[in-house]
Amino acid sequence: MYNFIFQNPTKLIFGKGMISRLESEIPSGKRVMITFGGGSVKKNGVYRQVKDALKGFYTVEFWGIEPNPSIETLRKAVKLGKTEKIDFLLAVGGGSVIDGTKLISAGLLYDGDPWEIVRSGKASGTVPLATVLTLPATGSEMNPGAVISRYETNEKFSFGADYPVFSILDPETTFSLPKNQVAYGIADTFVHVMEQYLTVPGVSRTMDHWAEGILETLIDIAPKIERNQNDYNMMAEFMLSATLALNGFIAMGGVPQDWSTHMIGHELTALHGLSHGHTLAIVLPGTMNILRESKGDKILQYGQRVWKITGGSREERIDQAIHMTEQFFRSLGLTTRLGEEGIGEKTIVEIERRFNERGVAFGENKEVTGTVARKILTDRL
Amino acid sequence: MYNFIFQNPTKLIFGKGMISRLESEIPSGKRVMITFGGGSVKKNGVYRQVKDALKGFYTVEFWGIEPNPSIETLRKAVKLGKTEKIDFLLAVGGGSVIDGTKLISAGLLYDGDPWEIVRSGKASGTVPLATVLTLPATGSEMNPGAVISRYETNEKFSFGADYPVFSILDPETTFSLPKNQVAYGIADTFVHVMEQYLTVPGVSRTMDHWAEGILETLIDIAPKIERNQNDYNMMAEFMLSATLALNGFIAMGGVPQDWSTHMIGHELTALHGLSHGHTLAIVLPGTMNILRESKGDKILQYGQRVWKITGGSREERIDQAIHMTEQFFRSLGLTTRLGEEGIGEKTIVEIERRFNERGVAFGENKEVTGTVARKILTDRL
Repeated sequence: MYNFIFQNPTKLIFGKGMISRLESEIPSGKRVMITFGGGSVKKNGVYRQVKDALKGFYTVEFWGIEPNPSIETLRKAVKLGKTEKIDFLLAVGGGSVIDGTKLISAGLLYDGDPWEIVRSGKASGTVPLATVLTLPATGSEMNPGAVISRYETNEKFSFGADYPVFSILDPETTFSLPKNQVAYGIADTFVHVMEQYLTVPGVSRTMDHWAEGILETLIDIAPKIERNQNDYNMMAEFMLSATLALNGFIAMGGVPQDWSTHMIGHELTALHGLSHGHTLAIVLPGTMNILRESKGDKILQYGQRVWKITGGSREERIDQAIHMTEQFFRSLGLTTRLGEEGIGEKTIVEIERRFNERGVAFGENKEVTGTVARKILTDRL
Repeated sequence: MYNFIFQNPTKLIFGKGMISRLESEIPSGKRVMITFGGGSVKKNGVYRQVKDALKGFYTVEFWGIEPNPSIETLRKAVKLGKTEKIDFLLAVGGGSVIDGTKLISAGLLYDGDPWEIVRSGKASGTVPLATVLTLPATGSEMNPGAVISRYETNEKFSFGADYPVFSILDPETTFSLPKNQVAYGIADTFVHVMEQYLTVPGVSRTMDHWAEGILETLIDIAPKIERNQNDYNMMAEFMLSATLALNGFIAMGGVPQDWSTHMIGHELTALHGLSHGHTLAIVLPGTMNILRESKGDKILQYGQRVWKITGGSREERIDQAIHMTEQFFRSLGLTTRLGEEGIGEKTIVEIERRFNERGVAFGENKEVTGTVARKILTDRL
């Protein structure tokens, strides 16, 4: 086990009817900007619940934070927030709305262009931010990270802001989600766990068990959600799992982390607009296969504990674990091959070029260079 | 899944050499009271590390917080703290020192007798408190609870204070612990998990997996620690598990909780001075056996997942799960029968009387009355 420091101050308010608690959770007198994505919250009743709970506050609404939130949109929100002297932010939506609002929270206290905050990697100060989560996937409701896109250059970068003060998670808000959003969210959650797990065995036994526990939950609930998306308990399991997959709880013990699948996935989103969770489902089996040597022991543990794979040679068991992973993503209704999305050699060459140009190398061993990324993507054609 | 609210603000600072961070973690200018138990921290070097790190602070030492910290001792600490105008507390020791210091943290802001705070169940205000943990067991380093004894009446009650601001956990501080303290700590951790787990299956799948994960870790590491208590990685697993067993992380999803084994155990400590973890090892198999009907489904899940018990009838598998639990405690070197400690019918009658007199009933179904406590204890003769 390695040295580590852990602290997660976000207050998690979880369950049916909890949106009404907004009134007592936000300090009185605050000037609140409520941020939204598209109009789905108007159809599913969330908008009404939020507005009812905030009757006693001065509120300003900012609409239109898009999937893969863009600096182009967020600059407008920062400008509006400064004009309105906003001192509390409430993000209502999924990970994109929350991530975008994290940049607003930093931008309101920054004099220059907010893109500079993204490229610096870290906000130097933020306005308090809370969330009402409607799409389980990114974990952004209980962590300080955010990913922002810049459309004019087809770029996508992450940066660190502050933890939300509180986050309200009502599983009923997920009943009306489009089926593909649920599939992306489950894939995203699964891969968040894998990025913190699939390195080497036993740095922390408990962390290994906890990561496997979330994976087993996802595998258990996915077909039940497929059959009935209005099953409260299953959507609650999904919602809680998504938060726990990326709030630091399974990263204690200083466990090594990978994140190369995410880094490659971000490029696929930036270049082709594929949903984030979808890109991960495509890339992860390739990462496992190309890095099968350095990750082999952990892939075997994963195969045995999560998929109950015990027979066959070492290489056969690794193949089987990769196969089961890909099949799980396919069972969600996702494509898992670049060719199925019309993506080919040209994109692979461009991603290799970008990684090489930036001089980056990802993964727990910093072995995923542009060349290795090309191998991983070629494996997914 | 049930509605729940979760927040745990404690900063966990974990690993070798981390005690030196005290200097930067405590706000400068604070008047610090450092609290200790006996003198073991002088022998193992912890005292020296703490004092070195606090050279820049005004400090007062309070020594002698005993196992099962007593109101009689703590009243003296509160008096000293008020005289010295203490505005920061640093508990250096195990759960007893930390629990006692939680009462000091409340007593410093309270005009009456601190025992009134304990009996009220909740502190109304506290002075900031941090900890350097040296004995993994109670989880007190990352939760707001504390248990205080009153020797003059042989009573023991819990109350709620505030979360420690930060806690430093250096596994090397545990190398020199007496063997029986390690055994008590492992038993305590095991039963903390069981109190939050052994009710009904599947209220939260992930929480079930996480609870089982800690139990599996403990079962895995206990014999390795028995062989070599200087194994850093094993003691680190133990230390982290003890914190995670009682910091709220495995109680999300509003999972039902039991705690009747603790309530009965507290009486055994109050009446006979048995160590807390030891009382739990004695009582738990009885709780499982007497409540085998209401807890049966969960005992079967526990038996199958944690002990790999799959053969036999339902009742046989339950018996086997109880047997394995008792054998685990015995493998730690603990006695698990009242008779082995010279405790008999007289104590059982007294505990039944106390529960009846207080009109209490414990457990997730409030079924553990004085009468049921008598049955549980009789099962452990």
